[in-house]
Amino acid sequence: MPKISSRAVQMPASPIRRLVPFAEAAKARGTHIYHLNIGQPDVESPAEFWKAIRGFGDKVLEYSHSAGNASLRRKMLHFYSERGIDLGENQIVVTTAGSEAIRFALMACLDPGDEVIVPEPLYANYLGFACESDVSVVPITTHIEHDFRLPPIEEFRRRLSPRTKAILVCNPSNPTGALYGADQLEELRELVLERDLFLIADEVYREFNYTGQECPSVLQMAGLERHAVMVDSVSKRYSLCGARIGFLCSRNGEVMTSALKFAQARLSPPTLEQVGVEASLAAPQSYFDAVREEYRLRRDLITSELRAMEGVVCPRIDGAFYATVHLPIDDADVFCRWLLESFEHRGRTVMLAPATGFYATEGLGKQEVRIAYVLNREALGKAMECLGEALNAYPGRTEAPAPRLAHS
Amino acid sequence: MPKISSRAVQMPASPIRRLVPFAEAAKARGTHIYHLNIGQPDVESPAEFWKAIRGFGDKVLEYSHSAGNASLRRKMLHFYSERGIDLGENQIVVTTAGSEAIRFALMACLDPGDEVIVPEPLYANYLGFACESDVSVVPITTHIEHDFRLPPIEEFRRRLSPRTKAILVCNPSNPTGALYGADQLEELRELVLERDLFLIADEVYREFNYTGQECPSVLQMAGLERHAVMVDSVSKRYSLCGARIGFLCSRNGEVMTSALKFAQARLSPPTLEQVGVEASLAAPQSYFDAVREEYRLRRDLITSELRAMEGVVCPRIDGAFYATVHLPIDDADVFCRWLLESFEHRGRTVMLAPATGFYATEGLGKQEVRIAYVLNREALGKAMECLGEALNAYPGRTEAPAPRLAHS
Repeated sequence: MPKISSRAVQMPASPIRRLVPFAEAAKARGTHIYHLNIGQPDVESPAEFWKAIRGFGDKVLEYSHSAGNASLRRKMLHFYSERGIDLGENQIVVTTAGSEAIRFALMACLDPGDEVIVPEPLYANYLGFACESDVSVVPITTHIEHDFRLPPIEEFRRRLSPRTKAILVCNPSNPTGALYGADQLEELRELVLERDLFLIADEVYREFNYTGQECPSVLQMAGLERHAVMVDSVSKRYSLCGARIGFLCSRNGEVMTSALKFAQARLSPPTLEQVGVEASLAAPQSYFDAVREEYRLRRDLITSELRAMEGVVCPRIDGAFYATVHLPIDDADVFCRWLLESFEHRGRTVMLAPATGFYATEGLGKQEVRIAYVLNREALGKAMECLGEALNAYPGRTEAPAPRLAHS
Repeated sequence: MPKISSRAVQMPASPIRRLVPFAEAAKARGTHIYHLNIGQPDVESPAEFWKAIRGFGDKVLEYSHSAGNASLRRKMLHFYSERGIDLGENQIVVTTAGSEAIRFALMACLDPGDEVIVPEPLYANYLGFACESDVSVVPITTHIEHDFRLPPIEEFRRRLSPRTKAILVCNPSNPTGALYGADQLEELRELVLERDLFLIADEVYREFNYTGQECPSVLQMAGLERHAVMVDSVSKRYSLCGARIGFLCSRNGEVMTSALKFAQARLSPPTLEQVGVEASLAAPQSYFDAVREEYRLRRDLITSELRAMEGVVCPRIDGAFYATVHLPIDDADVFCRWLLESFEHRGRTVMLAPATGFYATEGLGKQEVRIAYVLNREALGKAMECLGEALNAYPGRTEAPAPRLAHS
């Protein structure tokens, strides 16, 4: 029997999706599940999207340009320009969602064996893309006590090696909800300039910012024309997760030439969805404003509900729609599976993502889970009630002292 | 300035798409271009597809299951079963087109540095996916004199090394139109069993078979349960190139577990398109029959037109909708660019793909082009007229003796 590859063996299963079979079994038993395990918003996709899809008149669904439809790219450049990011026409490639943009960025910037420094907890699929690209993720741990802010720049310096080629940040952060402001990014800017590193920023949650302060893009930072690579997506911004449309943007011509070659190999991103996304760009500012306000209220709701639970620590959440929270439990993986297999409250339970999968450092996150607050407030309230009951009933509850927030 | 990766530098630009800027310039000058350079059929996508898309009633375009919608997978299993391929429910993963299926197959079966033997001329993007996956393509040259059939199995044996992990075939073949029958596959079957190799078959053109004989799937071959991996796509079968929906199928559980992990990392294939594809499966057999008959007539047309041109060699074409043909020219890359930059006949020209990009062996294919006969017969006839005129006018025409077909 032929052996599969070592990289296939090492490839991590998604910590978000590996609980799916247990959820399916719970549903089959008739249990209602509140899905806080995945960033699938319940917000309606823009009416403009559906209208464009239904009005699409071609008889043949053809390939698009490998870099994406020219009209979509032009409109995205306008979208960025209105937000203070001026790019040229060769500085954007439409990708099959943010996932592909991250993969293209890693492959363009790093060779097999090279290292990318990533603050953890991190978006779990970075580990998967790194495995596929045969690059090493060097984690730099952020802590709940400090609201998962970036650690002092000396911590980054300590992790530099001759193989370090890039720093990758998700801002605002999935899975922590932390938002890195201009001051924190400034230190990274100086470091990448000094050491000639790429600064790859996953900014797919940029609109989800509850601070009132601007969340700067790496493409707005002076002097980083050759260093900054930005990953974007419409999945969250327009509640179009299933469209699989994202963008890779950089002013580094070599990076973009490489991205186009990777794009050519897979021929094109989905055609029909690009048409819908292009139309969605006409959604008024009020669409985003309403979405952000709704998520702000949801954030407020879960923050206060979680903080009222004994032994639970909820840090400050400034952006995105996730929280990584500490629970008084022995093992997050066991707890999340137990929620699906052995618990229900009034016929309902909660699906959460164990935080262990969001740390590259083995052993971290055992008392943490990621909560995606992507349900309406009524459902969120009931989900919080479920979680509170579950924590009381869970056999693996611990009484060890919880971490203390330093800033909040 | 940070350096991009060596793999990005080595990544081949698509030979099919790198001429696009010259085509755009020709169009801007008002020249009509017959696109024989890319496998973009002009056949209408099924009415069932458009109906399902327009009738899609969800308000939120959500992620699908990472392995694809369960209902689509079930219907595909039924589709395969009706064609003599019986698979279980965990033996299929929906991919973002055949491109992703090939990439998943390579990553699941081969580690960086491992070798895959591929008959050339080959589908050019295999070289790109191999570069992304850091695996080596070991080409085995097939020849126009023998209608690009597989060479004797000894040729394969000669290329085996301790790093050989797989043989990859495209059957029917893009770019040659060759179809490998049961006898040729049988020798490969024995070899992969003997040496415990994977046999990866790209069968996206299976319906495009003009021989009257069946084109066997590797999944129908006895004893290859652990060895056979099949790549499929709806792009050509349903004229849905822009949908980006494909499939990876195998009875090897480890391969499929690996494929699912790769699939989880990128979350899901496009949601809306899966709904359309599922509906397309209800297209009647007459849809395929009509499509195949149309392509058979197109094949007949280009074969006779090409064979009437002096110095042109058109081999036997049994399947798919491509021909790799010999032209009396000095350099296919120069010729294909010249067609776009410096030639027109009655305001028209032809876009072809130079065959050099379809050979992994440097220097081969300089007098060959790939023709995709994806236009209606009237357009094809005019395109052939253009090509004939172009060959007469081309300054780099050679009078060297052409290869002679042994079988046709």
